[in-house]
Amino acid sequence: MSTELISQDTIVALATSPGANGAIAVIRLSGPDAITLTNTIFKGKDLTKQASHTIHFGTLRDGEEIIDEVLVSLFVAPHSYTRENVVEISTHNSRYIIEHIINLLIKKGVRAANPGEFTLRAFLNGGLDLAQAEAVADLIASENKASHEVAMNQMRGGISNKLQEMRDKLINFTALLELELDFSEEDVEFADRNQFQQLVAELKTHIARLIDSFAYGNAIKNGVPVAIIGKPNAGKSTLLNTLLDEERAIVSDIAGTTRDTIEETLNIDGITFRFIDTAGLRDTQDIIEAIGVVKAKEKVKQAKILLYLYDEYDNTADEVIDQVKSLYFDGLKVILVRNKIDLEGGYAENELDNAIKSALFTEYTDTMVAISAKDPQHVQPLKKILVDAIKDTQLEGQQIITNTRHLEALQLAYDALGQVEFGITSGLSGDLLAHQVRTSLRHISTITGDIDIDRDILGTIFGKFCIGK
Amino acid sequence: MSTELISQDTIVALATSPGANGAIAVIRLSGPDAITLTNTIFKGKDLTKQASHTIHFGTLRDGEEIIDEVLVSLFVAPHSYTRENVVEISTHNSRYIIEHIINLLIKKGVRAANPGEFTLRAFLNGGLDLAQAEAVADLIASENKASHEVAMNQMRGGISNKLQEMRDKLINFTALLELELDFSEEDVEFADRNQFQQLVAELKTHIARLIDSFAYGNAIKNGVPVAIIGKPNAGKSTLLNTLLDEERAIVSDIAGTTRDTIEETLNIDGITFRFIDTAGLRDTQDIIEAIGVVKAKEKVKQAKILLYLYDEYDNTADEVIDQVKSLYFDGLKVILVRNKIDLEGGYAENELDNAIKSALFTEYTDTMVAISAKDPQHVQPLKKILVDAIKDTQLEGQQIITNTRHLEALQLAYDALGQVEFGITSGLSGDLLAHQVRTSLRHISTITGDIDIDRDILGTIFGKFCIGK
Repeated sequence: MSTELISQDTIVALATSPGANGAIAVIRLSGPDAITLTNTIFKGKDLTKQASHTIHFGTLRDGEEIIDEVLVSLFVAPHSYTRENVVEISTHNSRYIIEHIINLLIKKGVRAANPGEFTLRAFLNGGLDLAQAEAVADLIASENKASHEVAMNQMRGGISNKLQEMRDKLINFTALLELELDFSEEDVEFADRNQFQQLVAELKTHIARLIDSFAYGNAIKNGVPVAIIGKPNAGKSTLLNTLLDEERAIVSDIAGTTRDTIEETLNIDGITFRFIDTAGLRDTQDIIEAIGVVKAKEKVKQAKILLYLYDEYDNTADEVIDQVKSLYFDGLKVILVRNKIDLEGGYAENELDNAIKSALFTEYTDTMVAISAKDPQHVQPLKKILVDAIKDTQLEGQQIITNTRHLEALQLAYDALGQVEFGITSGLSGDLLAHQVRTSLRHISTITGDIDIDRDILGTIFGKFCIGK
Repeated sequence: MSTELISQDTIVALATSPGANGAIAVIRLSGPDAITLTNTIFKGKDLTKQASHTIHFGTLRDGEEIIDEVLVSLFVAPHSYTRENVVEISTHNSRYIIEHIINLLIKKGVRAANPGEFTLRAFLNGGLDLAQAEAVADLIASENKASHEVAMNQMRGGISNKLQEMRDKLINFTALLELELDFSEEDVEFADRNQFQQLVAELKTHIARLIDSFAYGNAIKNGVPVAIIGKPNAGKSTLLNTLLDEERAIVSDIAGTTRDTIEETLNIDGITFRFIDTAGLRDTQDIIEAIGVVKAKEKVKQAKILLYLYDEYDNTADEVIDQVKSLYFDGLKVILVRNKIDLEGGYAENELDNAIKSALFTEYTDTMVAISAKDPQHVQPLKKILVDAIKDTQLEGQQIITNTRHLEALQLAYDALGQVEFGITSGLSGDLLAHQVRTSLRHISTITGDIDIDRDILGTIFGKFCIGK
């Protein structure tokens, strides 16, 4: 790990959200002088003589002026988030007070923190590895149960631990390979080629699974895009409204929390589904004309799930079959939704369904459901189908990656390991094999940060954080 | 103090601002079960066995699910803001995490706090008197140095202490007066009427000063309203822009702090000046016509300070004198501003000034300044004049009230004390005097809350707070 990045100065930032609706605000300092400098403006106990993890009531003063009555929390190095001395000042949430305190501390020699600089220090000082540090930002941004779970797992080392374990084994083999070089004249093999091949295969499988998990991880992080397609009057808006109505009713009423409503989104079982705006297709006959199909395809291309609505009054089997086939692409999950069964007086499988099933099932989809879109009770099973569609059971209990930086590193590591594998089977010499293994190791290590990471890359990673984290 | 209001349940609220731009959030609990209930969802040390004012790292869990890694701060009753057990949970600032924790605690039996309920409990449990509790909201709302200073002083007991001291003396006299009743047949006077009269006079003077301070207190709390009046082209917009330009340059750049710009405001020496929109008068000849004068008077009526702009090219002395006289009302601070001295090649007192001075000085104003409105350097002395106009030197170091509830109570107390004074001089009997004194005492006590305060009144006072305070 690069040590030149570790700065010896003390930083300060507002750690809580700015804004008028709070009672208290927390100002955070980290660095060697955090406690001694705070002590110079604090009237109360001598902060430099207090134990770590204790809280002290007193006043902050600018000369004679009392800025605020505050609570000061002390974290003495290395027992803190950053592993440095950390002070958290809990003040009344007044803009005037916050600015006054921060400006006063800056006058005393503290520096305003850059975005993510507290977490950067935690990483540089060994408190978190890089993947864990990156997860902190994801955790703060997580808006639903599924993305929260993934970020929490990653922050607690879920991804790093397994990678590090396999990496350590790989390093072992590299050491043995390099040892062979010292005895090259004797033609010995310290590194058992079979065991080595097995380890590489195992690691490749693990990395391949992680790479596969990205599609799911990315979807739950950013919401799963869903397209609803069907002829005009197929009931697309009705279905969307029935799905969303219930959601609106359970929107949290905790004061001040608002959500952006750029798109229509629906949270089911902690997974966010984003409904792609297919408005341009809703109210025209476009969908059955050539130009309409092109438009629809463009929209559906962004989706992971296609809800295809039809009914036995307005659709022929061929229509449905042709449409679905023309919209389909590899990886799209198609859910056939036969609507308006209330008009039929209840559901009974009929020839339409049978014709569609025999043409589309197994190759294009294997999910068909019959509903009345205006009935909230009918929509329940559809919700379960949506969740099942995205919750690949193979991912159950597995690590999930959500970060494109990790994806790229894993893909490079995977390719490099392929080279190693080929090297082993083709009887490549120890020194060349060792070189290939080190390439793989380097890619794996960039994920956890167990390697010199370029200052620019760190800047990019931590620059995405908010100030105060 | 009413004890029936003290609830035995435990409350919870987000104490920091909601919003996405923060790194951490603080959830606060208060009540008998705050620590034991938090302990049921906390994995780490046993919180029920830890000392007050200590901080503990661990995870919060909903069954098997880890909600977050948190820091829990403990304040054991009575060593807390509310004098009850208080827990502050410092979490990552994710809406999902915050809602999850609060909902989980509510499921465990905690109640969502009402606005101001933490401070209400601090008052009911004797941690703060009522005036101090009210100052907490003012402190949070304070946006400038002057209003912050007043709120801080009040929160630290500035107003209450002096009132309580005098109130205690008054109670002493009442006790002596009532003692006289027991010996009424003997015609003794335990309460020295001269000393008594002196105390009442002293108290009246103190209260009168507090009442007088309200105008200033209210102005610095809400901003001092200033009207700029003058003929078209007198340079009103130029002056305002010169004043504001500098202000815009020093607007803080701390991330996320924004200010509402409903009106044009200017902060000088920690005092906020609000410029009344006289736009309707700016670009017309209205001001010199009868209908214009009526309009101008309406606008100026809201002001505490009138900046009257004139120059020797467009104005006659009579015009200025008539205008100022017609706009004047008792309490308005008039500042005569002779503009455009750059055109004169520098300032020299002339006949225009002399005529205006002799007609208006002492009775209507005693401030005249000559400037070039477009020159920032010229505007500096005007700023000092604005601050001096509002900073009554008599208020220096004195308590200042800003609360209309206090104003009303003080006015009632003042009137009642007038009755007492009259009673003493007219030789009123001890029992009637005692009754009058108790009326005064009641009014004084409603300020500090040393009396049963109606539940509705408390509801009104604390309802203005934000949730979490």
